[in-house]
Amino acid sequence: MKASILNIGDELLIGQVANSNAARTAQLLTAVGIEVVHVDVCGDDADAIADAMSKGIERGDILLMTGGLGPTKDDITKHVLCHFFDSELYENAEALANVKRIFAARGYELTEVNRKQAWVPRCCTMINNNEGTAPCMWFEREGKVVVAMPGVPFEMENLMQTEVVPRLCKRFHTGCIVTKNILVQGIGESFLSDLIEPWEVALPESLSLAYLPDAGMVKLRLTAKGDNRDTLQQQIATQVTYLYSIAGQYIVGEDADNLPELVARQFRKQGKTLAIAESCTGGSISAGLTALAGASEYIRGGVVAYSNEVKQSVLGVHGETLSTHGAVSEATVRQMAEGIRQRLQSDYAVASSGIAGPGGGSAEKPVGTVWISLATPSQTYARLLHLRGQRKQIIAHTCNAIYAWLVRQIQKDCIGQ
Amino acid sequence: MKASILNIGDELLIGQVANSNAARTAQLLTAVGIEVVHVDVCGDDADAIADAMSKGIERGDILLMTGGLGPTKDDITKHVLCHFFDSELYENAEALANVKRIFAARGYELTEVNRKQAWVPRCCTMINNNEGTAPCMWFEREGKVVVAMPGVPFEMENLMQTEVVPRLCKRFHTGCIVTKNILVQGIGESFLSDLIEPWEVALPESLSLAYLPDAGMVKLRLTAKGDNRDTLQQQIATQVTYLYSIAGQYIVGEDADNLPELVARQFRKQGKTLAIAESCTGGSISAGLTALAGASEYIRGGVVAYSNEVKQSVLGVHGETLSTHGAVSEATVRQMAEGIRQRLQSDYAVASSGIAGPGGGSAEKPVGTVWISLATPSQTYARLLHLRGQRKQIIAHTCNAIYAWLVRQIQKDCIGQ
Repeated sequence: MKASILNIGDELLIGQVANSNAARTAQLLTAVGIEVVHVDVCGDDADAIADAMSKGIERGDILLMTGGLGPTKDDITKHVLCHFFDSELYENAEALANVKRIFAARGYELTEVNRKQAWVPRCCTMINNNEGTAPCMWFEREGKVVVAMPGVPFEMENLMQTEVVPRLCKRFHTGCIVTKNILVQGIGESFLSDLIEPWEVALPESLSLAYLPDAGMVKLRLTAKGDNRDTLQQQIATQVTYLYSIAGQYIVGEDADNLPELVARQFRKQGKTLAIAESCTGGSISAGLTALAGASEYIRGGVVAYSNEVKQSVLGVHGETLSTHGAVSEATVRQMAEGIRQRLQSDYAVASSGIAGPGGGSAEKPVGTVWISLATPSQTYARLLHLRGQRKQIIAHTCNAIYAWLVRQIQKDCIGQ
Repeated sequence: MKASILNIGDELLIGQVANSNAARTAQLLTAVGIEVVHVDVCGDDADAIADAMSKGIERGDILLMTGGLGPTKDDITKHVLCHFFDSELYENAEALANVKRIFAARGYELTEVNRKQAWVPRCCTMINNNEGTAPCMWFEREGKVVVAMPGVPFEMENLMQTEVVPRLCKRFHTGCIVTKNILVQGIGESFLSDLIEPWEVALPESLSLAYLPDAGMVKLRLTAKGDNRDTLQQQIATQVTYLYSIAGQYIVGEDADNLPELVARQFRKQGKTLAIAESCTGGSISAGLTALAGASEYIRGGVVAYSNEVKQSVLGVHGETLSTHGAVSEATVRQMAEGIRQRLQSDYAVASSGIAGPGGGSAEKPVGTVWISLATPSQTYARLLHLRGQRKQIIAHTCNAIYAWLVRQIQKDCIGQ
């Protein structure tokens, strides 16, 4: 099965936003064994859209489109679809009910412009968009499938996961797919690649491996394609066992999309609580963990101690520690972790203090110098990271280093008990 | 001048990485008045690359390519370029010197594979890549320009800024372009569209408008194209004045990419400090602000008060307030804001407490019920938000509501002085 992606929007052509929809769509298709052969991006221009649609349909069996479905003037995709499929727009009752539901929930009055959101081409199958007012539209012609989705990332993603991908699998009998995520941290992508190359090249035909690197960690995704789910699961289990024997010390966990999921899983399993003291990460460690539902079950809270006064007054870092060693130091970060743990009465606590840049670096402590600390019921540890990249990467890398450390430490401690 | 972008790499087609090169290239071209009409993404496949090159050259005057210039087997772009321009590879002395320089600097030994990096088609103008080993290549045919650049983002960006864009401006005597961002919050995209429609339809030919909605706010981007920068700036200024007369109460600020930039600008300008108390946003308000360099100049710090004990012990929320009104209430959020302001000795403080979901909702307080508070030197305010969407969107929307409120309040207060 071959698919093309067409992302529509002037904002993509002037570079206002990176095209995250293409990456996300491609991930979800690849995961079920549908090969993405091309991505097209064009503006809100009728001829450009129609031309890209023709080419997309030539290239494969499936064309997934996003964007241009909003209520505003510059959104013309629906009209292009009508013309392309020689159809006409009509007001779809279910779509209208959805629009009304959303406006009622928001306590807004339904305007004519918004009512137009419920209009779709007669020849399409309307797929309801629970997250927004722009409906998803499914078209079929000569054995090919064209799906138009809204460009709002979370609406598109929800539609892909709950409706579009399942329907595509059914429509094209993609066979069954078993995937396995393995989260690796503490080794660079290229070193990891060298380390596991012998294993990777020896993988059976039915298995494929994808590297998904993200700020200091790599998500390895094994995908098995075939007819028998049990066989595929057995194949994957066997290969994962081999992988552990080669790279076990770098593996943080399995069956998760990101490290915060593994942190949450461990803390819930062990019934422990966590507190967070952040300087250079500025709230990102907490934000990453609390982005997951149910975080309140194990997170007591956190402190963003940007100023030294706050490090002293709230976290109890000693003034002389700050004046002698500075804010970015082992002594300070240890006191931050111990301070927040005591303050919030948690089992575990983590802390970060570093120079995320672009300013603030020195010869002795260049940008990317980050101290992290982990306080447990029995002792407090500290580590020094030397990170590269821009501010955003340094913050993200620090968060991932702390998440991985937490998972490994709590596992070690609880085995010890 | 019309340009197409062609990004090459299998990793883009399986969604391993978002295509940031397209956005960055488009920004740099748009800034000098070169219109990007299309973006193509294809894999490391000779036919796909050649086909996309032909189409790109048809579409405009300029084709900018990135990727596939590495030393490994799967990088075939140079061979495709040779075939496309009926040329042959040769070892370019300047490129070789650059490769040797970089390997010497890294203390690596130069292998045969790496030496191949210095080979380029005879028919191209080699542009040296100071940041990496893959040279940039400039081709001309029948008045059209094709430039192939490495896919490594910072190498590509450096080449674009220092070499490619200046050469393109010289080669095509480009006109100029002026853009203006206006950040709007507190009105939905479709209501905004209704409100400003008369203004939008009456915009002069030379001006175009783009809507960029993001979690409860909309970035309006006005783009003017022409020959005379002053004229364009005057045109935009005139239209922005009109816009204020229609939608002024929803405009938070101008000339910024996001609301945190406006918050930082106001706090620096007024020399005020900020403290943040977060419950349902779990650190995202702080993370959004501290993502910008220099945040430490005005942010004292923050507290993520996930548990009620922390709301009491650190923020000083009264136990009876929590038991009587609950954590998600006006009384609690006001005490959170006042507590953190006093605790961290800041001029301003904000607080959030709500139900981000998916769980935790009730008939009385459904998911999306969020109380926010703003404490100023003179008084404390509170507002109730009813938000929709998934947890991520509810958190992001709350952050934007708070950022916009901060900007408006500090402006009002400082005018008042």
